[in-house]
Amino acid sequence: MYIKELKVMDCTVRDGGLMNKWQFSDEFVKGVYDACVEAGVDYMEIGYLSSEKAFDRKEMGPWKFCHQADLERIVGKNETALKLSAMADIGRIDLDDIPYASDSVLDMIRVACYVHQVDKAIELAHHCMDKGYETCINLMAVSTVGELELDEALRDIAASRVGVFYAVDSYGSMFNDTVQHLVRKYTKALPGKQIGIHAHNNMQLAMSNTITALQEGCTMLDSTLMGLGRGAGNCPIEILIAFLKNPKYRLLPLLKVIQEQVLPLQETIDWGYHLPYMISGALNAHPRKSLEWMDSERKNDFVAFMKAMHDNEVLE
Amino acid sequence: MYIKELKVMDCTVRDGGLMNKWQFSDEFVKGVYDACVEAGVDYMEIGYLSSEKAFDRKEMGPWKFCHQADLERIVGKNETALKLSAMADIGRIDLDDIPYASDSVLDMIRVACYVHQVDKAIELAHHCMDKGYETCINLMAVSTVGELELDEALRDIAASRVGVFYAVDSYGSMFNDTVQHLVRKYTKALPGKQIGIHAHNNMQLAMSNTITALQEGCTMLDSTLMGLGRGAGNCPIEILIAFLKNPKYRLLPLLKVIQEQVLPLQETIDWGYHLPYMISGALNAHPRKSLEWMDSERKNDFVAFMKAMHDNEVLE
Repeated sequence: MYIKELKVMDCTVRDGGLMNKWQFSDEFVKGVYDACVEAGVDYMEIGYLSSEKAFDRKEMGPWKFCHQADLERIVGKNETALKLSAMADIGRIDLDDIPYASDSVLDMIRVACYVHQVDKAIELAHHCMDKGYETCINLMAVSTVGELELDEALRDIAASRVGVFYAVDSYGSMFNDTVQHLVRKYTKALPGKQIGIHAHNNMQLAMSNTITALQEGCTMLDSTLMGLGRGAGNCPIEILIAFLKNPKYRLLPLLKVIQEQVLPLQETIDWGYHLPYMISGALNAHPRKSLEWMDSERKNDFVAFMKAMHDNEVLE
Repeated sequence: MYIKELKVMDCTVRDGGLMNKWQFSDEFVKGVYDACVEAGVDYMEIGYLSSEKAFDRKEMGPWKFCHQADLERIVGKNETALKLSAMADIGRIDLDDIPYASDSVLDMIRVACYVHQVDKAIELAHHCMDKGYETCINLMAVSTVGELELDEALRDIAASRVGVFYAVDSYGSMFNDTVQHLVRKYTKALPGKQIGIHAHNNMQLAMSNTITALQEGCTMLDSTLMGLGRGAGNCPIEILIAFLKNPKYRLLPLLKVIQEQVLPLQETIDWGYHLPYMISGALNAHPRKSLEWMDSERKNDFVAFMKAMHDNEVLE
């Protein structure tokens, strides 16, 4: 399936950092960067853009902030075809802390928001566009949003200057028909805009949901090395690239960085398919509780977790 | 999605046994059996039906043979709603070694064959039907079969008395459109017969391919606990049951046996998502080479495996 406009975005450091507070070694981040360049990946999301007053630098690694000095230590002036992206959460970044694109190695700022923050997200995205960045908006947790509320948000997005809008399966709770429905809805509501897909792997559906989104016309595909990301993780970029068979991409550099940098992290980070993540996905629940459970001594007591989730649901 | 005729088949012991020569403890097999009964699963495939002269009993565990005495030690007379199945490979079982169904706790014999063995498979299946069993035929490695050859095989199946025919993704190389095409082809060629799906998880698509097959009308769904099976394994039954939401199934007994019996096997058996299995799936190759690689000291050198696979492909 050859699609000329297709873009693949690697989010390994940004989404994976949710599992270790962005405490990656420089060697790791440089390894991911070099692999993305050599593999012909279109974008690499290297972290979050946050203000220092929102988070403690002693607790969070450099990729929670994406300061220019940290970026340049890894990518220099980034004189490659790979574009660099950072994600910005509403309320975690002051507008004055965002440099002009001409003073930054970042090419894109992706704004993540919940449905009640869509107007703020558009304002922030417009601000970034005026400073020279590509932007997009990632609407999170859409699996919990009512239809009327979503339609209103889509009207606001449609009227904005933002060119890319993401279908995001934050809870890993979507099946192929959900993704098909969502992408069709977004495409219809947002003529002229590009649609992206960001999937989570709670029910081992991140790869197939990404294919479904592609078949429905999505042209920005998020993925991570070995699926490294929050909880069950994301669509594995190595499967995606093997599937796409697009001549602009190469698989070997991705395999190399996986065996050298990503695989060893499995000893300290519990991402990927684990039953508590599957249960939270199947229940369309925020991954918070499954992440807490996986951090506890009872991580492998799946029966107790299922019962705890049911009891909480009744209480809530 | 409520489908009255839907049947779920657990193949944990049969397909998982390909990874440990069916050397499961009685406690393990009893645990799987009890869980299937309590969860309302329709069929449990407990192993292979093989003749003693085909395999060495010192090397292979009891579930490679499925003798009545071994079966009864686990299931007694199986006075439950769960039906028991065993798989038979062409040439590995003498007809005289198959007992009458009335003398066995087995309800179904599934015949596995390659395309050139379809006539032999039909003969064996008819023999089993005459002895009182339910049967079906699983056509393996169909991703390497030419269209004309497949059409001829389907005509033979259509003319047989065998009631169930399986779409099998032996190499884990199929995508949603491949599965859709195959199930539609089988359905059209085999009016009045039931179609089943048996998926492998090399590209993390076993669960989604099973959903696709179901959406296309498949009513026999194979799956295993935590996906335990050859190489990358199968469709995980716990995700499938969570997806189906069918009132006849219960998830908790499956979670219980997973945490007590299946999860601990991860320390000795490398099934599931590993890059060599992904590569062999993406290349539509028999899992043999990836299994050998995973058994070697170079198991985590994915770059070398990819290169070796390419070189072999050129040589073959």
